[in-house]
Amino acid sequence: MRIYKAHILYTKEKDRFEVLENGYVAVDENGRVTGVATDVKSLDTGDAEIVDFGDCLLIPAMNDLHVHASQYRNQGLTMDLELLPWLQNYTFPEEMKYADTQYAEKMYRRFVRDLWRVGTMRACVFATIHTESTRLLMRLFQEAGMGALVGKVAMDRDCPEGLSASVEETVQGYESLIIEFGGDPEALVRPIITPRFVPTCTSEMLSACGRLAATYQLPVQSHLSENKDEIALVKTLEPESTCYGDAYDRYGLFGQTPTVMAHCVWTEGEELELMKRRGVVVAHCPTSNFNVASGMAPIRRFLDAGLQVGLGSDISGGHDLSIFRMMVYAIQVSKMHYQQDHQQAFLTLPEVFYIATKSAGSFFGRVGSFEPGYEFDALVIDDSDLNHDGYSLLERLERYIYLGDDRQITHRFCRGQGLQV
Amino acid sequence: MRIYKAHILYTKEKDRFEVLENGYVAVDENGRVTGVATDVKSLDTGDAEIVDFGDCLLIPAMNDLHVHASQYRNQGLTMDLELLPWLQNYTFPEEMKYADTQYAEKMYRRFVRDLWRVGTMRACVFATIHTESTRLLMRLFQEAGMGALVGKVAMDRDCPEGLSASVEETVQGYESLIIEFGGDPEALVRPIITPRFVPTCTSEMLSACGRLAATYQLPVQSHLSENKDEIALVKTLEPESTCYGDAYDRYGLFGQTPTVMAHCVWTEGEELELMKRRGVVVAHCPTSNFNVASGMAPIRRFLDAGLQVGLGSDISGGHDLSIFRMMVYAIQVSKMHYQQDHQQAFLTLPEVFYIATKSAGSFFGRVGSFEPGYEFDALVIDDSDLNHDGYSLLERLERYIYLGDDRQITHRFCRGQGLQV
Repeated sequence: MRIYKAHILYTKEKDRFEVLENGYVAVDENGRVTGVATDVKSLDTGDAEIVDFGDCLLIPAMNDLHVHASQYRNQGLTMDLELLPWLQNYTFPEEMKYADTQYAEKMYRRFVRDLWRVGTMRACVFATIHTESTRLLMRLFQEAGMGALVGKVAMDRDCPEGLSASVEETVQGYESLIIEFGGDPEALVRPIITPRFVPTCTSEMLSACGRLAATYQLPVQSHLSENKDEIALVKTLEPESTCYGDAYDRYGLFGQTPTVMAHCVWTEGEELELMKRRGVVVAHCPTSNFNVASGMAPIRRFLDAGLQVGLGSDISGGHDLSIFRMMVYAIQVSKMHYQQDHQQAFLTLPEVFYIATKSAGSFFGRVGSFEPGYEFDALVIDDSDLNHDGYSLLERLERYIYLGDDRQITHRFCRGQGLQV
Repeated sequence: MRIYKAHILYTKEKDRFEVLENGYVAVDENGRVTGVATDVKSLDTGDAEIVDFGDCLLIPAMNDLHVHASQYRNQGLTMDLELLPWLQNYTFPEEMKYADTQYAEKMYRRFVRDLWRVGTMRACVFATIHTESTRLLMRLFQEAGMGALVGKVAMDRDCPEGLSASVEETVQGYESLIIEFGGDPEALVRPIITPRFVPTCTSEMLSACGRLAATYQLPVQSHLSENKDEIALVKTLEPESTCYGDAYDRYGLFGQTPTVMAHCVWTEGEELELMKRRGVVVAHCPTSNFNVASGMAPIRRFLDAGLQVGLGSDISGGHDLSIFRMMVYAIQVSKMHYQQDHQQAFLTLPEVFYIATKSAGSFFGRVGSFEPGYEFDALVIDDSDLNHDGYSLLERLERYIYLGDDRQITHRFCRGQGLQV
């Protein structure tokens, strides 16, 4: 058992912060929180070592529910097209390079390190169609001690030849990864079934993905209702589906196992109802939705409807890997909805913090809070260079979220382990 | 004469970058560019010293057309209200503290240093009503060697007692600052006439401001059409004015001398025409417009109409001091207009770069380009930590703008002087 002392802030509920000035959090040998308190004696310390982080802030680590590791080279580049031409012109050519495992290793090493650097300890990650470089990425996450659901991408339609894999090849690739990584449901790094999105998957591929998810009880990730042209295209490709979400649902890819769908910019009505019924999680990617000119997802409506929401950096549609930046953008997007319709209250700081930590974290298990039983995923923030006029703890956290970056993060924990990548 | 060697990028015109791989820029003893070329012999070097920045990028420095130095403590804080209540609850109480010159010195020193840090070498700055702390801020800019137009704020209506100054006191304060800083039109640090905005200024105050601007041939800055409630309020306060802009124009505060107006989120029709006729410059503050839930300024329309536009951080309505970040946000805002109306093409990277450098810079003189005769305001960017896969020079610049921060800025020049703050 270890006990960490610092100013502790986290969100048990979505509407308010728990704030423990000079608080203590106790973590057992399995990396789980056993208690959190301002009175250390109440934590039944025994002979626990106390690690004192002084005047630093201690908060749950960040979770990224949607990121393309294989687009890492393009981060911050080529922001001049909408979704469909952007894929064809920039993204697919880049992803083809991952047939080369040497190239993949170079890029994936930097990617994993940078994810660690910005304080993201768990992520839902898209790799490429290539089984071997996907395996490599999963091993890099294991080496780093970070949590990741990593998807070999399934796609066999309307994509360049080098990025198409047959259903058979895809299933074999998945099964090979499942043998290595899929056995332990508690493992930090696991496969996630990843049909890219309806436009690049034949019905056979979607069926095969649904069967893989059901057979191996694996989670699912994909894209949903990001762009109006994309939605129109899906309508022509899957004419029997009643909405884009339904096109996944028919193949067992919409909540039959835990499912996260990125974007949902234009989700409403029946699709929203279906997501709610199926418990499908929204990965809100606000910078990406700006950069690829998709639109502004109505997150307040999703929360009002009872949907579960997390945040995604969506590199390289998004340009910023930091989930702290995504919190700021998520509030800003919600303020534009509020500005147009005062009935849609904008998101508050505790709400976006909750979304980024406990809400997103639940996709990985008991992650994202410091309540007893939660895995200790945490960041230590030394904001002394930002803290120049006697701010309160909540003001310090707000300022860190708006102004800080990786420079203020001094320690990173995932499942109780302090990580150096 | 000095010659700097690096990869040089700048925008002479708004539609494209000038790119000089291993280029040279020659700067005379007055800090003005005498030539820029890839062939050093063409620059008539004589015995000029050549400073070699190796593989770094050399670009014009940033200009911030709208920032409140006196809201520096609140940067990244209290983002939960719209404009008018935000002013009353958070901003005015903070500004009152600047009656204390010790407090002002502590905050203004950090502010000037941070402006330097993020690469902004010229700024249009709001101080407070307090003459002595405004003087202090101007001296700090002089010490730093940075360019600033600094406004003692004029306000005498609808504000807390400690933030109201009479017309007489305001005019005396200005004249005292003009004596110290107003004599040389070429000086780096000068006063700028700064009625806060119509709601906090009586007609007498606006008249006095217009007279000061005319008498001393000083520029003017204020706020315009930021928020719909504010616009409605102005309509009741100045019922004879045909639009918000006209309420300034009647008092000689709308282009009679060089004028910059922050926000213009809701400017259209007659106001837009008046701005064009008067040559009034728009300070586009996209993060602030998000944070205070004002809306999204239609910059493409302004450019199509021939208005001159620059970018502003608007601390603390905005939370980010970096004009590079403002470029990204300006593109993103324009993409939301494009998404809603494909007739409004979104802003391109060379366009926002031009806006932030040459267009905004022209408010300070011949600033923001490396054409001969321009003052050498420049940043040296060592992006080696971002440049991990053989990017082109334009890709490197785009990535720096989207991903970089102050860590990559190794040298900062204002009017030819390398600055350390």
